[in-house]
Amino acid sequence: MPALNENYLKLEKNYLFINIAKRISKYITDHPESKSNIIRMGIGDVTLPLAPCVVEAVKRGAEEMGVKETFKGYEDSGTGYDFLKNAIAGYYSSFGADVKASEIRISDGAKSDCGNIVDIFGDSNTILITDPAYPVYVDSNLMSGRKIIYADCTKENGFCAAPDQSVHADIIYLCSPNNPTGAAFTFSQLKEWVDYALRNEAVIIYDAAYEAFITEDDVPRSIFCIEGARKCAIEICSLSKTAGFTGLRCGYTVIPEELSFRSSDGTEVFISQLWGRRQGSKFNGVSYPVQCGAAAVFTPEGREQIKVNLEYYKENARILSSALDELGIFYTGGKNSPYIWLECPDGMGSWEFFDYLLNNANVVGTPGAGFGKNGEGFFRLTSFGDREKTLEAAERLKKLLAK
Amino acid sequence: MPALNENYLKLEKNYLFINIAKRISKYITDHPESKSNIIRMGIGDVTLPLAPCVVEAVKRGAEEMGVKETFKGYEDSGTGYDFLKNAIAGYYSSFGADVKASEIRISDGAKSDCGNIVDIFGDSNTILITDPAYPVYVDSNLMSGRKIIYADCTKENGFCAAPDQSVHADIIYLCSPNNPTGAAFTFSQLKEWVDYALRNEAVIIYDAAYEAFITEDDVPRSIFCIEGARKCAIEICSLSKTAGFTGLRCGYTVIPEELSFRSSDGTEVFISQLWGRRQGSKFNGVSYPVQCGAAAVFTPEGREQIKVNLEYYKENARILSSALDELGIFYTGGKNSPYIWLECPDGMGSWEFFDYLLNNANVVGTPGAGFGKNGEGFFRLTSFGDREKTLEAAERLKKLLAK
Repeated sequence: MPALNENYLKLEKNYLFINIAKRISKYITDHPESKSNIIRMGIGDVTLPLAPCVVEAVKRGAEEMGVKETFKGYEDSGTGYDFLKNAIAGYYSSFGADVKASEIRISDGAKSDCGNIVDIFGDSNTILITDPAYPVYVDSNLMSGRKIIYADCTKENGFCAAPDQSVHADIIYLCSPNNPTGAAFTFSQLKEWVDYALRNEAVIIYDAAYEAFITEDDVPRSIFCIEGARKCAIEICSLSKTAGFTGLRCGYTVIPEELSFRSSDGTEVFISQLWGRRQGSKFNGVSYPVQCGAAAVFTPEGREQIKVNLEYYKENARILSSALDELGIFYTGGKNSPYIWLECPDGMGSWEFFDYLLNNANVVGTPGAGFGKNGEGFFRLTSFGDREKTLEAAERLKKLLAK
Repeated sequence: MPALNENYLKLEKNYLFINIAKRISKYITDHPESKSNIIRMGIGDVTLPLAPCVVEAVKRGAEEMGVKETFKGYEDSGTGYDFLKNAIAGYYSSFGADVKASEIRISDGAKSDCGNIVDIFGDSNTILITDPAYPVYVDSNLMSGRKIIYADCTKENGFCAAPDQSVHADIIYLCSPNNPTGAAFTFSQLKEWVDYALRNEAVIIYDAAYEAFITEDDVPRSIFCIEGARKCAIEICSLSKTAGFTGLRCGYTVIPEELSFRSSDGTEVFISQLWGRRQGSKFNGVSYPVQCGAAAVFTPEGREQIKVNLEYYKENARILSSALDELGIFYTGGKNSPYIWLECPDGMGSWEFFDYLLNNANVVGTPGAGFGKNGEGFFRLTSFGDREKTLEAAERLKKLLAK
């Protein structure tokens, strides 16, 4: 009989968003009249349609594939078409990050790369993950039975932990702007982590999926804006939130060509080669029309069009933030992030506040406890909703939570 | 310093198709006048464009995503849209295989699922792989340090090995119609493997990527046409060769709901749940417009349109086969498969014949040795080429190899 990967059996059974869906569904069964009144600000999914030039580019790509002369089969390299890698490298250089097109690999999304990147590392590593965090970092390491230690992100440090110099880690996950807290590292805070990684000879897996929401000048858009990062970091990025690609699926991962570590016999091994071997054996590249759509995002026209959507979401974030400001409720995020991470009022627990808000305001958010122990007592709202509903949710919050 | 997954360092460095590309490029440098004369029948990639109704469906999907009311973000289940899973289930029932829509998971291609499926099993398993075989089966297991044993496919058994009852395996990889040999199991041959798996309480990972090329009635299109398979098999399939999706990327994996094994403490664990946990954490579903294109393949119009392409490739296979018949060269495949697997004439080795054919006929194929030790002395040609070039290649073979 095949032995199973029993690490899977140790994973939490109740996935956060399934649990949320169940509670909403029970509420609707009990209060059918409220169904249309519920405002959902739980799952971090976008709601605005794809930019027109992205739609046109996908259609053009599909049309090319219907004609023998321009048909595209397997991609030669499987790493993404040059037209897209060059466009992304150009975007990096626009904000001063030093990334070559040849260091970029196109993927079907940040989740796949975040989950699969663990494959190239041994199982004996000590993994450092911030708490709270996106569950994929934790789960993908538990699935391979690795030791995880946590960096506590709390109200006291503004949900931006600094490295604890007394602790050693081999692999470090950082996400900035952060999911779920919306907090974002400044240049100097991120520099501390890069220095820590270099001192520990550790690798940082840097999730930059929310970089498009950065508004403040002292917040870096990429870890490669930080000196030394090319010797210790892998960056994973996505068009899901930047350009509404959650259903179209496209992301990219950057591994600097000089990033290397030593195998147990002392041989220098380049990480881009290991990752190339992994992807070469287990992945066959991203759909050509999708890559065409992704490249359109980086054209001047595309930049203009996605900016409209980003501004819409950012304004939603401002609406929610000012409601919380008015209420005097502590929160992080909202400024450089589509997420607002608020402290549950009156010392309520995360799930308690979830039920309170659902029952008394018909507003759905995400209980912070679902992202780790430091999330207990906190709550995530997203700004990816409809303007009208966001305004209405802000009003309901103000009414319900006013002292 | 992070420990690396050192199993990667034991993998073969020279990937087959890179090696082929290098030899062609050297030949062209030495004989620049031959460049346009070279006929490439090496890589198993299709050349005909996507069917018109697939192109239209992808475009329609893209358009829906450009309109707020019909925009698609994350898929709720991440397992594929019901419209596609229902279409595939309908296709299975058209040839009598018992597969429910809920047992199907849509993927970005067979390669990803073939590579990733190992994640849900422990590393202590004994893996049985036919030799020769598609390199992904071997590499994805070497990457996790598993013990592999081989079932020899040879000229004597028509490159269709029967199970060796004296050997135990936990996980068995079968591919039929086979890549690279083109050989296909009959119902009774496949039944032997299913019975062997049931007796050994093993799981079969069945790669059916080439089922659309089956022409003979006694060859099953799915392992789920075989009694007992639902208790021992996972089937991985793809639209890459069926409908020319090598660049569009879509496949599917079927795990019967009753397929289960026991964990070390005796608990019954359902394989579909383990795979769902793996995919739920490391994959976010397939692009919506691509799923629209995939569903079009299964409409009556789509079936008609892809049939034209399949017939074209099948006729190419007949052209190559009859050249070999005329020459009296032994081969398998060509009948139920786009691949023709021929014995190199005059006892030549695979790479020797590769060079001989390139130098003397400007025809490129794939050396059988690249697929395992039993591939030595054999050679793979594909029928995915242009009709004119296939006819020309057949003529060159006949001229060069005539006694």
